Amino acid sequence: MDRVPVLKLGDILIVSIQIDLQDQSVLALQEDLANKVVETGARGVIIDITAVEIVDSFIGRMLATIAAISRMLDAETVVVGMRPAVAITLVELGLSLGGVRTALNLEKGVALLNHIDGSEIATATR
Amino acid sequence: MDRVPVLKLGDILIVSIQIDLQDQSVLALQEDLANKVVETGARGVIIDITAVEIVDSFIGRMLATIAAISRMLDAETVVVGMRPAVAITLVELGLSLGGVRTALNLEKGVALLNHIDGSEIATATR
Repeated sequence: MDRVPVLKLGDILIVSIQIDLQDQSVLALQEDLANKVVETGARGVIIDITAVEIVDSFIGRMLATIAAISRMLDAETVVVGMRPAVAITLVELGLSLGGVRTALNLEKGVALLNHIDGSEIATATR
Repeated sequence: MDRVPVLKLGDILIVSIQIDLQDQSVLALQEDLANKVVETGARGVIIDITAVEIVDSFIGRMLATIAAISRMLDAETVVVGMRPAVAITLVELGLSLGGVRTALNLEKGVALLNHIDGSEIATATR
């Protein structure tokens, strides 16, 4: 169970990070996400980090890399569910998560992506 | 990181199971889900088991229990993302997942819940 599942809902891919990511699982996630963005033509990627208690520079870099890869593939990335303590730590560490948008929760992330695209996300099956 | 996050999207709660669940984390998940259903008035619960490679009687019972609790609270449960091998194992073990609806993936699960309720799931923030 060390592959993080990538869920698809309409034009959005949703990833919920719950495991302690190691080098290999991060690479696998980046690859899975990139493949799925291309395969599905997704316009947005939402990464939920509700379960992540500690964001260090490794996780921060991973989020920034995923956002950069997605952007190359014409998809916007939003990180949602950040805990207050994580936000404090990130600022204290001087990590800015460059290029990564954040939203409070999944719903606000979806709303943000809708706003970015100026159209509604279809939840219906395609 | 042993608490499974419960995401909310419109009237639906989404849970993606990625960790090996133990007795305690299953109890925590059931409690979190029940609280969140009441708190948000959610009409549907989608449990994604894409990452689950082995479904034994313990996991099967957990899914059935979550479905029963949700039903008590007037929410329908759909299990999505079951691997073919898992389906085969379940049948071989004679586990029927009584009372649990299944759908192929998240999108089809959302569509199923929409159909159950006869109305559209709002993805917009509330």
